[in-house]
Amino acid sequence: MPFPTALTERLGLVHPIIQAPMAGGGDTPSLVAAVSESGGLGSIGGSYMAPTQIAETLKTIREKTKRPFGVNLFAPLPAPVPPKDYAPAIARLAPYYAELGLPPPSAPVAANYGFDDQLAAVRDSGAAVFSFAFALVPRDVIAAAKARGMLVMGTATTVEEAVALTEIGVDAVVAQGSEAGGHRGSFARPFEASMIGTMALVPQVVDAVSVPVVASGGIMDGRGIAAALALGAGAVQMGTAFLTCEEAGIPEAYKQAILAARAHETRITRAFSGRPARGIVNRLMAEVGDGDVPGFPLQNALTRPLRTEAGKRGRAEFLSLWAGQGLGLARRQSAAALMKRLVEETEATVRRIAVP
Amino acid sequence: MPFPTALTERLGLVHPIIQAPMAGGGDTPSLVAAVSESGGLGSIGGSYMAPTQIAETLKTIREKTKRPFGVNLFAPLPAPVPPKDYAPAIARLAPYYAELGLPPPSAPVAANYGFDDQLAAVRDSGAAVFSFAFALVPRDVIAAAKARGMLVMGTATTVEEAVALTEIGVDAVVAQGSEAGGHRGSFARPFEASMIGTMALVPQVVDAVSVPVVASGGIMDGRGIAAALALGAGAVQMGTAFLTCEEAGIPEAYKQAILAARAHETRITRAFSGRPARGIVNRLMAEVGDGDVPGFPLQNALTRPLRTEAGKRGRAEFLSLWAGQGLGLARRQSAAALMKRLVEETEATVRRIAVP
Repeated sequence: MPFPTALTERLGLVHPIIQAPMAGGGDTPSLVAAVSESGGLGSIGGSYMAPTQIAETLKTIREKTKRPFGVNLFAPLPAPVPPKDYAPAIARLAPYYAELGLPPPSAPVAANYGFDDQLAAVRDSGAAVFSFAFALVPRDVIAAAKARGMLVMGTATTVEEAVALTEIGVDAVVAQGSEAGGHRGSFARPFEASMIGTMALVPQVVDAVSVPVVASGGIMDGRGIAAALALGAGAVQMGTAFLTCEEAGIPEAYKQAILAARAHETRITRAFSGRPARGIVNRLMAEVGDGDVPGFPLQNALTRPLRTEAGKRGRAEFLSLWAGQGLGLARRQSAAALMKRLVEETEATVRRIAVP
Repeated sequence: MPFPTALTERLGLVHPIIQAPMAGGGDTPSLVAAVSESGGLGSIGGSYMAPTQIAETLKTIREKTKRPFGVNLFAPLPAPVPPKDYAPAIARLAPYYAELGLPPPSAPVAANYGFDDQLAAVRDSGAAVFSFAFALVPRDVIAAAKARGMLVMGTATTVEEAVALTEIGVDAVVAQGSEAGGHRGSFARPFEASMIGTMALVPQVVDAVSVPVVASGGIMDGRGIAAALALGAGAVQMGTAFLTCEEAGIPEAYKQAILAARAHETRITRAFSGRPARGIVNRLMAEVGDGDVPGFPLQNALTRPLRTEAGKRGRAEFLSLWAGQGLGLARRQSAAALMKRLVEETEATVRRIAVP
């Protein structure tokens, strides 16, 4: 490149490429640091971590790179309404636990760690970017992060969500198209309203807000990056492309599932976490379905021991195989090699479509 | 521009812009001719026309332009299984008919016109392009169209559909992303497999086939055109953007609905035709829903008199308001003005993202 945008200049990035935060192990400190060292923005999802773990993880990243990186948290959500009786939800999952020789799961006792404590760890971390998803956050959260010099990004799946984010003061909006893998960042209702494709979503968000827009969803290579820049994005955020990198901390069976799957083989499901997310269809997703699943993060807690054990044993049929619809373009490589290829492809694409 | 591609050179187009065929009245001869006269490819959907009407319509277009244009037909489909009893389907629609002072609809007697007769009219029409959707067609259909010098395009919503189309001999594939308005061209099963966003679909199709790929779904302006070219498309096909043109033959209430709607306000529905299609949510879509609707084209016949009358009276709540997720970018203008703007925007976009 370089393709300088307001966002890359503000953050000191060489390339307008953000590795998506992927709470759950994909985004290891090694992956985050490799992306940042390559001139992009590595990001880590801290939502499932205790505050002390966030602090330790970010310290590890800082030891690996002096370049900017980002941290993502789920916005604080209202406590989910627990089912009157956990027995049916547990009974439905028990056969899968039994297949792995595990006892059935217990009813979840606590939800996630407290947002405020997680945020305190983030604010002290030296991260250049704080991003959030799933909801709005209080204005003072944004103000406090900005006061530490952090750039604050919120996640939107509709134009209205993007506008709402700018009204609470975010510095940039991640526009997450329906192609995206993993949890939908949406808070608009009904959920179906949030399923707008990247090609349609990004330019409409760009026109509606005055802050930089980060395009995400279905972007896997330099063609996608050039396309996102054409749509008006100031950067892209890519998850699936980084999941098959050597540094990604997901089970090998998960990487192999991504490399083997085809574009039409993902679906939105609540079966794993209670919240809509896109992943490769597998046995647990197909059999558990979406009906009568406890809300997030209750179902997430109910399936976690199963997923953890399945990862150890290479049993992809019980893993949440989060991946986006671009997964047919995924390759196995190092993060540095991927970044190099993305940059070269983007340049080649821009040259290919240049006006003579 | 120009942005020459194999497809524009083969067809003698000045611009890689195809106005989507929109069977049902949007694509008037005036619209088709205006697009072709502006250097793009106007297209007409002939599926709901009798063969003589196709012949007359194409003659009208030829009188208005010497430039190339295209004709689209629905591929021949197996006859739909009629419901054992039409009474429930009729009873569900009767209140809407009554609201407009109409008697309830009759059980449909015949399906569409015969494909072979429609095709004969197309072959004799002087059209430069024959395109089809909803299924594959027999190989001899493609061979016969090619023998008349026509370029043949099929519609794909998955990589596998695109490959299947090339195996029967199409010259180009229209890759229809999930953003697209109107009927889904898909034939893959289950239907959910066909809902791949344009950003993810196009590059994966481009990599899988050796013929030119036309990107469709969510493309509304020059940013989208440049993005599609970046993804590897040889042209774009745009429907919604042309529906609000002065020449488009849809009711004024439909145009106003497009101009007023927001990106998150469309859904896929079977309520109007029995086949999944994307339109703006309105009363009939919301109230009839998808459950227990007779298959295409039976439901289409059941709702047609209602839609026709609603169009005359400006009652958008009973119209099939087909539109894609990019509809927030629609503007009212002439087709020539739209084409001019698209070309200028595409050039400006390509310059904006050029490597210095």
